[in-house]
Amino acid sequence: MHAIELKSFRADGLCLVERPEPAPQAGEVLIRIRAAALNYRDTEIAEGRYGMPIALPVVPLSDAVGDVISLGEGVTGFAVGDRVNPTFFPDWIDGEFRGEFFAHQLGGTLDGVLREFMTVPVTALVRAPSHMGNEAASLPIAALTAWSALTGANLRPGQTVLVIGTGGVSLFALQFAPLFGARAIVVSSEDDKIKRVIALGATAAVNYVRTPEWGQRVRELTDQRGVDVVVEVGGAKTFSQSIAALRVGGRMAIVGYASGAELQFDLRQLFIGKSATLQGHTVGSRKQFEEMNRALEMHRLMPVIDSIYTLQNARDAYARAASGQAMGKVLITL
Amino acid sequence: MHAIELKSFRADGLCLVERPEPAPQAGEVLIRIRAAALNYRDTEIAEGRYGMPIALPVVPLSDAVGDVISLGEGVTGFAVGDRVNPTFFPDWIDGEFRGEFFAHQLGGTLDGVLREFMTVPVTALVRAPSHMGNEAASLPIAALTAWSALTGANLRPGQTVLVIGTGGVSLFALQFAPLFGARAIVVSSEDDKIKRVIALGATAAVNYVRTPEWGQRVRELTDQRGVDVVVEVGGAKTFSQSIAALRVGGRMAIVGYASGAELQFDLRQLFIGKSATLQGHTVGSRKQFEEMNRALEMHRLMPVIDSIYTLQNARDAYARAASGQAMGKVLITL
Amino acid sequence: MHAIELKSFRADGLCLVERPEPAPQAGEVLIRIRAAALNYRDTEIAEGRYGMPIALPVVPLSDAVGDVISLGEGVTGFAVGDRVNPTFFPDWIDGEFRGEFFAHQLGGTLDGVLREFMTVPVTALVRAPSHMGNEAASLPIAALTAWSALTGANLRPGQTVLVIGTGGVSLFALQFAPLFGARAIVVSSEDDKIKRVIALGATAAVNYVRTPEWGQRVRELTDQRGVDVVVEVGGAKTFSQSIAALRVGGRMAIVGYASGAELQFDLRQLFIGKSATLQGHTVGSRKQFEEMNRALEMHRLMPVIDSIYTLQNARDAYARAASGQAMGKVLITL
Amino acid sequence: MHAIELKSFRADGLCLVERPEPAPQAGEVLIRIRAAALNYRDTEIAEGRYGMPIALPVVPLSDAVGDVISLGEGVTGFAVGDRVNPTFFPDWIDGEFRGEFFAHQLGGTLDGVLREFMTVPVTALVRAPSHMGNEAASLPIAALTAWSALTGANLRPGQTVLVIGTGGVSLFALQFAPLFGARAIVVSSEDDKIKRVIALGATAAVNYVRTPEWGQRVRELTDQRGVDVVVEVGGAKTFSQSIAALRVGGRMAIVGYASGAELQFDLRQLFIGKSATLQGHTVGSRKQFEEMNRALEMHRLMPVIDSIYTLQNARDAYARAASGQAMGKVLITL
Repeated sequence: MHAIELKSFRADGLCLVERPEPAPQAGEVLIRIRAAALNYRDTEIAEGRYGMPIALPVVPLSDAVGDVISLGEGVTGFAVGDRVNPTFFPDWIDGEFRGEFFAHQLGGTLDGVLREFMTVPVTALVRAPSHMGNEAASLPIAALTAWSALTGANLRPGQTVLVIGTGGVSLFALQFAPLFGARAIVVSSEDDKIKRVIALGATAAVNYVRTPEWGQRVRELTDQRGVDVVVEVGGAKTFSQSIAALRVGGRMAIVGYASGAELQFDLRQLFIGKSATLQGHTVGSRKQFEEMNRALEMHRLMPVIDSIYTLQNARDAYARAASGQAMGKVLITL
Repeated sequence: MHAIELKSFRADGLCLVERPEPAPQAGEVLIRIRAAALNYRDTEIAEGRYGMPIALPVVPLSDAVGDVISLGEGVTGFAVGDRVNPTFFPDWIDGEFRGEFFAHQLGGTLDGVLREFMTVPVTALVRAPSHMGNEAASLPIAALTAWSALTGANLRPGQTVLVIGTGGVSLFALQFAPLFGARAIVVSSEDDKIKRVIALGATAAVNYVRTPEWGQRVRELTDQRGVDVVVEVGGAKTFSQSIAALRVGGRMAIVGYASGAELQFDLRQLFIGKSATLQGHTVGSRKQFEEMNRALEMHRLMPVIDSIYTLQNARDAYARAASGQAMGKVLITL
Repeated sequence: MHAIELKSFRADGLCLVERPEPAPQAGEVLIRIRAAALNYRDTEIAEGRYGMPIALPVVPLSDAVGDVISLGEGVTGFAVGDRVNPTFFPDWIDGEFRGEFFAHQLGGTLDGVLREFMTVPVTALVRAPSHMGNEAASLPIAALTAWSALTGANLRPGQTVLVIGTGGVSLFALQFAPLFGARAIVVSSEDDKIKRVIALGATAAVNYVRTPEWGQRVRELTDQRGVDVVVEVGGAKTFSQSIAALRVGGRMAIVGYASGAELQFDLRQLFIGKSATLQGHTVGSRKQFEEMNRALEMHRLMPVIDSIYTLQNARDAYARAASGQAMGKVLITL
Repeated sequence: MHAIELKSFRADGLCLVERPEPAPQAGEVLIRIRAAALNYRDTEIAEGRYGMPIALPVVPLSDAVGDVISLGEGVTGFAVGDRVNPTFFPDWIDGEFRGEFFAHQLGGTLDGVLREFMTVPVTALVRAPSHMGNEAASLPIAALTAWSALTGANLRPGQTVLVIGTGGVSLFALQFAPLFGARAIVVSSEDDKIKRVIALGATAAVNYVRTPEWGQRVRELTDQRGVDVVVEVGGAKTFSQSIAALRVGGRMAIVGYASGAELQFDLRQLFIGKSATLQGHTVGSRKQFEEMNRALEMHRLMPVIDSIYTLQNARDAYARAASGQAMGKVLITL
């Protein structure tokens, strides 16, 4: 079968190779990958600057949708032909994240999804939303992180969520907000992206380049109350303004650090007369993935797709994802 | 009646004065103050560097215990002779903190407790624990903050809480841990304080001067799991090590910034593979105060008192509180 | 001013009377009532079979919308001309319900809203949703109970809620479900009401007369999973089927007993292999009312109104409400 | 190896047999059972009246402690010689209970623990508390159910829990209450058992035969507030009085039905002015088991053991457990 292997951390590290087609062991499911999607993490891995050691060669990418081809011994709950997503952390079934889950990651410490066929433990699969085709490849990291952030922050009808920028998690948070009966305000650096997020349903958007004190501007958009929830993906350059935008008793979901991870801020902002809560999120469990897919299916919500590449031009897909120009997910079909 | 007024932000700003004895209006209770207690905030106020403007003169201090002397019209729920604590935020009855509560603080924007008699809205009083005398003066800020931190972090039997230093909130957190079935580990800079906290029930204590990487040392004391809860009062100089000491999925209660509020740390510590939660706390509600006092009474827990002064030498009490030498609360009796 | 008084528990107990116009005391707001709404409780009170003693005469009804006419001394947060709802339990500001709140109820132990003017403590008022007129009278009990039920059950996007019948709380629960991203299934005894609830957005509806084992039928409508949440208002005749319809780990909000309160069921249904949670609700706090009104306003949701009467034919309004024929709230305008 | 098989649902159905010693497959652990414990469920199974079909022959009993003898391929996290408990629901690792877990139960639908050796999936094991010997056999159902009940009810320091009778779950709830900083009140039918529970730490105990309205009596013991939590194991004959004893906003954990499952009560008790929550519990997850064992170890808490039998007189153990005379767990050593 065709597969991509990351053979080095250089620009030409991604190589199209042939591998034997795998067969499912007991408790495993064989799936035919239909499409994969890129995350920021995949760029870090390809460039050799991911936060944990990656042994080469490795089949890259963690996010995919595929069809069930055959079932190993003792497998129940799935049938041949089912459209499925593998989970990013195969060990995380339900409950809170545990440290030992971190060691097993698709497309990192484990071979990933950029290959025609792969076997997956039945406990590391969810049914893809029935109304999606290849778009479902975008769900395992970006959508599930946004879902964990919003459910973890207990977002409620009538509330307002602040979305930072237009990366993968942020666009999902923007699209998910109405499912919770909430509205979204977006901050972005580019006016054309602002037009896009308004078209996608944002109630308001603020250009953070032209409005450096955008935290205060966001407060004004909420009658000075502040937003109930922030989905923080910006890190160093957005953190202080995000807290400024947050209401008393509000919750900030920490899910990224696009502008740097080295934070500087005044701790008093967080607690004195503020009582804010910050919660770090690491994707989500299989149980949360199932719940999210049920919600997406009920609302027939479709992910925003920026562009679609083939296995043969996977390097172009990586280049697009790393360009900062993508608005929506970059997919690779197989 | 005798009272202390803060008349200026100079060293001699605290003055003994005479004031007319107040009478309770409808819905108010007249109490005879028996003892008051100092918090770090009171030093900030006296030195003119509190985080909000304070109009002078003001009767300082917020924490007290007193006896009910008479009841205004329509007051129910208290009787003459009841021993009571006024609440720090008189408007915060129950539920989450709201921004508007912040404007009304005893001994700050409102006249405080350093006077023989005061009237209090019946909604801003709780019954003091029956087994305490003047020690109950120490509860309204320090104990209630520790209680909010531990209940807010959902501390459970079998868990471990990390306590930073030996200030007022920290000593209460140390004493409260066993009520939750948990054990406490303390970090401190002085060996004699370490002896004291061990005597007070700490399972272990680490000298953070001699062990700069004390976060790792605390992990070792928990079989490398990390602590379940940190009560963070240190701020700038302890924050990173506190996170290092925290387990995956752990909770940090942010309640102080003794070593500075300007924080610098790597955001990745918080979420990638960690899923930590930080929650800022601003004292607590009357409801929480009632629940705490019921717990203290059931366990006959006694606060640690460092020293007791009289109204006449209130300035000495302030000096002691500001010295950094106090181990336990500094009281002033009336 | 005109007012209605309940003077006896007989059919002619409701009498139009003249009362002096009240003036607001310190901390009170004078409001001009624009419309009131009836609940099942009001029929019980008028017929002398309410669950607590009611002293006569009393101004009946608890649910209203009005305009702020003047402010007593010290009142902030409201302005003349504001459109407001009084809260059913004037003492319940925030946090959990407390037993002592129960003794003070509008239109029961306290004079109610069926009068042109009334004074209300500023702490017992919320802003009505700006897009509603007299319809806002329907909110204080029925809508807030539905809101408490759904938020208390932590209803989430993608979930399904079961609504019993078409009474006041049930219609609000049906209308609220989409705000939470959830779908509603309704059971009813009449086919024309079933048509109405489908028109109001129900995903499915089951006639419980023709399908006595409707719990199983509801399970089929959820792919045999069972519903995530039940808003139980039926009591004796619906309870067992409601539990049958509930999924493993599901939550049932107990808010009424239209078919009788004397329950008979097998306790094993609740826990063995089911792990269900039941939660009783008693309307809601002012804080919840504020949050609900913010949500209603954001979504411009309009209550279902069955019919509108005037003060002069208030008895007809009571008759309509008691008839069991009403589909939506019965209002009285003033 | 020696094993007991249940061969029929008659009195002589329990038979000592020889079985081949099992070998661990990949992902399994071989353990040498040291002791097993009986629950009420085991009597139901042996008498053929358990709530689900049981295929014979079956090795009975679910609760045991044993030593790790050898590890199958790929097993990590346990070492030879570790003292361990198998979990009752082998599929329930973490998170909420799911319906499909119910089909797999040790000593029911799966062979149980009354045999010298058994293999267990590594995901269905926890480390036993290090300070316990054979007493640890008593933990998997009774202790874990009590733990789930108290943690699920969010029991807090200063609160009061009501314990019904002196069965296995109840005695653990009584012993666990102080770990949560709470006190326990017990109701029982026998004065000598009342003496025992007082000796075990109950703050008070009420003889429910002599005090039929014991709900009111329990209220008096809590200054008329009512208890914060009830661990309901009684069912039909205790339910109404349990609710009467519960405070406004209190929580009842439903974990048994010793006096019958057919309930009759007035639904209004639950919600009108009460806002009670009822939660059914079905033992607990492996994660909860791990947390409980950590707590038990920290507090060196020892289970109450009624009597100890050998494999050869297992029938006597069953007779003792069914007699209603046992105070504490009945063990069988191997």
